[in-house]
Amino acid sequence: MNISITKTTNPKQKPDQNDLGFGQYFTDHMFIMDYTEGKGWHDPRIVPYAPLELDPSCMVLHYGQAIFEGLKAYKTSKGEILLFRPEKNMERVNSSNDRLVIPRIDVDFGVKAIKELVKVDVDWIPDAPGTSLYIRPFIIATDPYLGVRPSNTYKFIIILSPVGAYYKEGINPVKIYVESNYVRAVKGGLGYAKTVANYASSLKAQVEAKHSGYTQVLWLDGIEKKYIEEVGTMNVFFKIDGEIITPSLEGSILPGITRMSTIELLKKSGIPVTERRISIEELYAAHAAGKLDEAFGTGTAAVISPIGEFNWNENSITVNEGKIGPVASKVYETITGIQSGDMEDAFGWTQKVL
Amino acid sequence: MNISITKTTNPKQKPDQNDLGFGQYFTDHMFIMDYTEGKGWHDPRIVPYAPLELDPSCMVLHYGQAIFEGLKAYKTSKGEILLFRPEKNMERVNSSNDRLVIPRIDVDFGVKAIKELVKVDVDWIPDAPGTSLYIRPFIIATDPYLGVRPSNTYKFIIILSPVGAYYKEGINPVKIYVESNYVRAVKGGLGYAKTVANYASSLKAQVEAKHSGYTQVLWLDGIEKKYIEEVGTMNVFFKIDGEIITPSLEGSILPGITRMSTIELLKKSGIPVTERRISIEELYAAHAAGKLDEAFGTGTAAVISPIGEFNWNENSITVNEGKIGPVASKVYETITGIQSGDMEDAFGWTQKVL
Ligand SMILES: Cc1ncc(COP(=O)(O)O)c(C=O)c1O
Ligand SMILES: Cc1ncc(COP(=O)(O)O)c(C=O)c1O
Repeated sequence: MNISITKTTNPKQKPDQNDLGFGQYFTDHMFIMDYTEGKGWHDPRIVPYAPLELDPSCMVLHYGQAIFEGLKAYKTSKGEILLFRPEKNMERVNSSNDRLVIPRIDVDFGVKAIKELVKVDVDWIPDAPGTSLYIRPFIIATDPYLGVRPSNTYKFIIILSPVGAYYKEGINPVKIYVESNYVRAVKGGLGYAKTVANYASSLKAQVEAKHSGYTQVLWLDGIEKKYIEEVGTMNVFFKIDGEIITPSLEGSILPGITRMSTIELLKKSGIPVTERRISIEELYAAHAAGKLDEAFGTGTAAVISPIGEFNWNENSITVNEGKIGPVASKVYETITGIQSGDMEDAFGWTQKVL
Repeated sequence: MNISITKTTNPKQKPDQNDLGFGQYFTDHMFIMDYTEGKGWHDPRIVPYAPLELDPSCMVLHYGQAIFEGLKAYKTSKGEILLFRPEKNMERVNSSNDRLVIPRIDVDFGVKAIKELVKVDVDWIPDAPGTSLYIRPFIIATDPYLGVRPSNTYKFIIILSPVGAYYKEGINPVKIYVESNYVRAVKGGLGYAKTVANYASSLKAQVEAKHSGYTQVLWLDGIEKKYIEEVGTMNVFFKIDGEIITPSLEGSILPGITRMSTIELLKKSGIPVTERRISIEELYAAHAAGKLDEAFGTGTAAVISPIGEFNWNENSITVNEGKIGPVASKVYETITGIQSGDMEDAFGWTQKVL
């Protein structure tokens, strides 16, 4: 399929590179492709960024049949534009699509669409250290119909947003509230899919945690409220008594691409990662025994986010004196080094756009 | 607040009353009201039905922060227009809003908005037996922003759809597939809220059940996969050994307004309803002992939907020889009688629009 390109005749003013924040500015163009039952995905096009016209009865607004992805394009010091494992995001699109009964998209074509769009808006990619171009592919159900059933029409859309450095003033470990009241997802549900429902269900817990001075919540499993799942928009890793542990993927947590990369990276450095269930009691017991050496989150937004404190049922524990530890540092430096082109990409993780 | 009215200059052709189906035709007007942080809900207006212009980064499309309701307006044989307990729907809006961190809406104002809109499109209310005007209030988060947090802006919208009779060829009991793989909702999650996430999570199970010849799935609790929750878009009732039982509201099922009305109605007729947890084993044991007299669903769409067959792990049981039972019949006739104005409304459930 050929992607048609219609350029804007009215380019926007670009925002100040030092004040980008996250997800609030959007570039001049977007990618759109339609799906119609019987016809398949068709009419891929890059067009000026503009409001979508959606019928008020449009199914996504009523039944949440929608999925999304998040990845970034980085400008290297040599001026190259790199993507980090974009095929993994497109594979996850299809895993999410299967769960939400949305038709699959060809992985290679999806990556091509991302690249073409990034090329068109290449001038929007910021180059201050730590900045990048956030890429948000998403799919929405568009039938104008109120019955509960999968839609027969969809739109696959990609939008781009220049984003600021996550750590402007150095890496500050976060304070995490262990949630024992609200549940994000449960086995048999939607937890492993990157779908709107999981974020809707997280809002209330997040607001309450913020209120109490915590950055994010750590979710426990929905069945026993015992096993550690993930944090906000990050997977979690622990170093306990020298062993690196991350919760195994059991259907209720998102299989993060940074998680996968962290596991592969550590393995290659001779540091094995154990993927298994780990309970919050075990974490607290390890801390009590002086064996909880590190805790950190992994995700596209921050790459690595060290965790300095947990609060579980009003019991607070501090990890590694509230400082980033050596494993988190090493992973952070390697992944961001590869993304920024400053380190050799021995894994073949990056794809060059330009 | 005053509701401004802008009438369409281009009214649509009305659909054939005998071929309305459900949720596929929409009237000439819609109600919209905006929310902005600091300003509250404002600018309530009735305007011509038209597409919404939504920024592609609009939060509802990414994080599913949205809720909805469903109720009906009925035309009586005397030509009056009645609503059925609309204040209960608006109360449920606020319960859903609280869970989704959406600002509340004044219940009386919400009911007034529904009435005003129905009046403007009164000519759209069909009058063939069993037909009605379906009313869909909904709220969507509209910030053009990709960070995960509650939106600062929202739209409350009401649209109307003339719908056909649910039972055109008499009441036919449905076949229900007991779902033991997928989970709709779990305690601590969103189950009790009427929010898009719960419907997104139901689609795959529903499609698979349809494939195997079943109308809908019966959800079991997400923790033990043991206790009966609800069916598709209906709550469930059983008559076992003379006792009427419906699952108690424990946070994971929708508190249906038809469920509430059924309980109140039966109570007034001297038939108590026990609200308690009931396991699928208990249901099957009751059937084996010849004591499962009736099973039926309750919901706005069909009012009562008798269940003729269950399939749980490939074990099928037939209820009441696949026919509607006396309790389901009585509830159906009373509620539809009150809605259509043919029976006296001893409960004060209806509100007159015109
Ligand atoms: C719920 C959740 N968990 C984990 C992650 C981390 O995934 P990734 O490393 O692919 O960004 C994300 C996404 O960013 C997320 O939304
Ligand atoms: C999941 C679910 N359960 C139950 C019901 C029944 O609720 P009500 O009787 O208020 O229509 C509905 C809605 O119609 C529903 O969507």
